Amino acid sequence: MGPKSREIQMKLMRGLLDFVILNFVRNQPMHGYQIISSLRKHFGVYFGPSTIYPLLALLEEKGYLKSQWDLKNDRPRKVYNLTPQGADMLTSTEISLNHIYRKLTSGLNKPSLSTLPNHRNTRGIKI
Amino acid sequence: MGPKSREIQMKLMRGLLDFVILNFVRNQPMHGYQIISSLRKHFGVYFGPSTIYPLLALLEEKGYLKSQWDLKNDRPRKVYNLTPQGADMLTSTEISLNHIYRKLTSGLNKPSLSTLPNHRNTRGIKI
Repeated sequence: MGPKSREIQMKLMRGLLDFVILNFVRNQPMHGYQIISSLRKHFGVYFGPSTIYPLLALLEEKGYLKSQWDLKNDRPRKVYNLTPQGADMLTSTEISLNHIYRKLTSGLNKPSLSTLPNHRNTRGIKI
Repeated sequence: MGPKSREIQMKLMRGLLDFVILNFVRNQPMHGYQIISSLRKHFGVYFGPSTIYPLLALLEEKGYLKSQWDLKNDRPRKVYNLTPQGADMLTSTEISLNHIYRKLTSGLNKPSLSTLPNHRNTRGIKI
């Protein structure tokens, strides 16, 4: 992946980060470090602790995640679960993203008369 | 669309707005008002002139769009075309978005052992 592609990938991922994190913990409670690792593994992007931990706290504050301490490891860790409210949010986001994605990948470029009143494009073709 | 869904749709669209605009003008030069109308028509979201015009200026500054005055109408209008650099940017974004979308909609939730070392989830199931 070139530096330009990486920049684009990071920009898209920043916009979708809430959604990706809720998606990660849907079936599988995870702690912060696992989320950072999964982002790198699945999407090839690195978001550090200073991005991920405050975002997890914010998602919990909004009621989309619920954390609990996992004391079974050497080091206690906060593990995040999806709440029912988070699951609703995830479903709504999926519907929206599906809609946007479908629009972007099909038929968007066919201009319709209603959006282009009395317009000639720069090639002089009446549309 | 409920207020919650609309909020989600707006948030996703804000993150993808550059891409959506470049996509709009790919086959069809457009002026600002047409872009605002098309966003509303195709995506059900309203972004006003104070968002769209500065963004168009920025995309031109970055070399992704090139404007020219259309003097054939009652009122002169700046019409935006996609540049070759903009087309490259669009292709890279499509590749990234496809990648992210595929990851999100398939198999993401199957945890792999390599990302989850020595972890038991909160239901006590060894994974």
